[in-house]
Amino acid sequence: MLGRVEPIDDIAELMAGIGRKARAAAQPLSIASPEQKMIALIAMADAVDRRAAEILEANRQDMADGEKAGMAASLLDRLKLDTGRIAAISESIRTIAALKDPVGDIIAEWDRPNGLHIERVRTPLGVIGVIYESRPNVTADAGALCLKSGNAVILRGGSDSAHSSRAIHAALAEGLEAADLPADAIQLIPVTDRAAVGEMLKGLDGNLDVIIPRGGKSLVARVQAEARVPVFAHLEGLCHVYVDASADLDMARRIIVNAKMRRTGVCGSAETLLLDRLIAPARLLPLLEDLHAAGCEIRGDASVVQLFVAAKPATEEDWSTEYLDAIISVKLVDGIGDAIAHINRYSSHHTEAVIAEDVHVVERFFNEIDSAILLHNASTQFADGGEFGMGAEIGIATGKMHARGPVGVEQLTSFKYRVRGNGQTRP
Amino acid sequence: MLGRVEPIDDIAELMAGIGRKARAAAQPLSIASPEQKMIALIAMADAVDRRAAEILEANRQDMADGEKAGMAASLLDRLKLDTGRIAAISESIRTIAALKDPVGDIIAEWDRPNGLHIERVRTPLGVIGVIYESRPNVTADAGALCLKSGNAVILRGGSDSAHSSRAIHAALAEGLEAADLPADAIQLIPVTDRAAVGEMLKGLDGNLDVIIPRGGKSLVARVQAEARVPVFAHLEGLCHVYVDASADLDMARRIIVNAKMRRTGVCGSAETLLLDRLIAPARLLPLLEDLHAAGCEIRGDASVVQLFVAAKPATEEDWSTEYLDAIISVKLVDGIGDAIAHINRYSSHHTEAVIAEDVHVVERFFNEIDSAILLHNASTQFADGGEFGMGAEIGIATGKMHARGPVGVEQLTSFKYRVRGNGQTRP
Repeated sequence: MLGRVEPIDDIAELMAGIGRKARAAAQPLSIASPEQKMIALIAMADAVDRRAAEILEANRQDMADGEKAGMAASLLDRLKLDTGRIAAISESIRTIAALKDPVGDIIAEWDRPNGLHIERVRTPLGVIGVIYESRPNVTADAGALCLKSGNAVILRGGSDSAHSSRAIHAALAEGLEAADLPADAIQLIPVTDRAAVGEMLKGLDGNLDVIIPRGGKSLVARVQAEARVPVFAHLEGLCHVYVDASADLDMARRIIVNAKMRRTGVCGSAETLLLDRLIAPARLLPLLEDLHAAGCEIRGDASVVQLFVAAKPATEEDWSTEYLDAIISVKLVDGIGDAIAHINRYSSHHTEAVIAEDVHVVERFFNEIDSAILLHNASTQFADGGEFGMGAEIGIATGKMHARGPVGVEQLTSFKYRVRGNGQTRP
Repeated sequence: MLGRVEPIDDIAELMAGIGRKARAAAQPLSIASPEQKMIALIAMADAVDRRAAEILEANRQDMADGEKAGMAASLLDRLKLDTGRIAAISESIRTIAALKDPVGDIIAEWDRPNGLHIERVRTPLGVIGVIYESRPNVTADAGALCLKSGNAVILRGGSDSAHSSRAIHAALAEGLEAADLPADAIQLIPVTDRAAVGEMLKGLDGNLDVIIPRGGKSLVARVQAEARVPVFAHLEGLCHVYVDASADLDMARRIIVNAKMRRTGVCGSAETLLLDRLIAPARLLPLLEDLHAAGCEIRGDASVVQLFVAAKPATEEDWSTEYLDAIISVKLVDGIGDAIAHINRYSSHHTEAVIAEDVHVVERFFNEIDSAILLHNASTQFADGGEFGMGAEIGIATGKMHARGPVGVEQLTSFKYRVRGNGQTRP
């Protein structure tokens, strides 16, 4: 059935049924015990390991199809599984299994003068839809994170990785069965039509509570524009590093190279470097030389081009470009105020770092910039749920509602109030 | 200008300008000190008191217009101000002034093995749009709550209360000026065209972060259906009270009458009473007699009609009707499991109460029902931000994303992460 174009009516019907089954599974899942969910997750990890050969064989089919279709090498690399990557998948599920169960966690509690005791406790969101592209490991990560947080999930993987996702999903299903949890808790849509995405965006008759798109900008933009349900979206990571005159410049060198070059294709990679004009040119140069030596193209404003012969001139467009590549835009600014103004104008509100020893500079940076993650004297590449200690993430949200920054199990929950009284009536 | 129909293009332009001004005001507001906001709020309360005569005169104009237009008595009562109600408005602003400032509050903090220290801190949401109908006090409450939480607000009041809202807004503007805060922090739209609402629903070119509709179901439904920005909506409060066989029935009598009859027109008023079939008929009867004596119409299932002669038969529609009136639907159920099933099927997930002494019954009720507020041995009429100790509320959210239950100053915030390092790079 995979990849075959079905008549639209069938897709609508198929998706409506998937929505109803997810909603039905969400209720028992919301009251499943932490132990039951942990048993399921460990059984899933074991099943992934046990089924490794089968998953690799499925992946070989996807790879062969991709090569035949002329898929780009970078996409083929994202798609490819090997024994090491499969071990990483089962390890990630075990990490999620070991996390604290968020459901029922008391976030806050207080007493009222009339004797009422109020608790705010975490609850699952309900049914989560995840729309992703070629990475097969998302099937496992999203399935495991949603289960841990007590949510039913509808997975819509890309057609490129359809066989791999199906093989991984079979392992997840085995885990659900081992723990006596409903099979519909984790559903993988069995067709890869775009119409299925359209149905999800319409909300499956109220049976979908939130959509998480994981993929390129065009997918995310389509989901944001068309979805009739809330979206946890990661649009782009146009991350800045500002080096203040008070900075430890040896530290700045190490952080800048790491922030830009550790991995250039991730959302936490730095795209623009802002340098305090008060730093002496002789001390600035090494910062740029390090980047250049590491293979990074430098696009600078007029001052930078004058200072560093290998720099190309930056255009206005450079300040709002997420390169996701070994390119960085560099600008000299007049101190922290000017840096903040530049960031507030061009940032995608994802992640920004300040390198400074002056605490007043750091406090202004922390207070006056409204981005999800602000770092002091550390690399922007720490923008990651695992690095934050959340165990794993389903993505990084760039919106400000509900979830912001890394989306882990806590961010996949809502809350309710439990109020205990002894006969109180309201005057 | 009020109420005059403007050409649509002018409205679009007007609203776009209001959006830009709100966004520009949001930045200084987000970094305003707690003291500065408190000074503004106290000056606003003082100005409301000082301008009482002026506000009353404006309200008399609205009342005269309403009477001329044949407005219903209940709506006229909502619209009407007197010296007592004006004192309540300024008192409410003073209560909000005295609340803890949420901005910058550290919600959580932890250390990572690599020495990074992570803080999650509250930040304002940005620009909030409030769309409301005839109650003039919403102008003051919404303006004060948004200011306290560091947000700019765009107020779109109803045409019925246009003069009153304008007079109250003038007092708020005086408070902003006294604290040297931007006048555009609290803007009241100077026209009452429906087209202005349409522009808000489209999001004012990205200059509106969330919309809060306060009013009847048709307004809320329109906003939910059409808004392209997040909505904190209160759709309906179909609240249940379940009386278990283990209940203290004297307590149950008091709570039921209060839950239904204290005020029948509020969202926390009980609409359905579920009675455990194990309670002896002779002990059940007083519960119904009390309600009946208090002037409440009882619509019961077959068992209830048989038991209580004054009960009318309930139809299927009754179980999903929010009466907002002195009417209650009553059903006998087979214990807690049956009560939970009924509530999960018909509830609007707003507020439910259980009257029981058996702790296992209470725990099942608390765990297996997914409503914003669950109460044990207390009246559903406590569903209110003030009663929760939040000082004041801008509404009660029935959605599960971001805000749920009473929306006070904390719920009007987002958060960001501040990460402090000493040179960490990511391996």
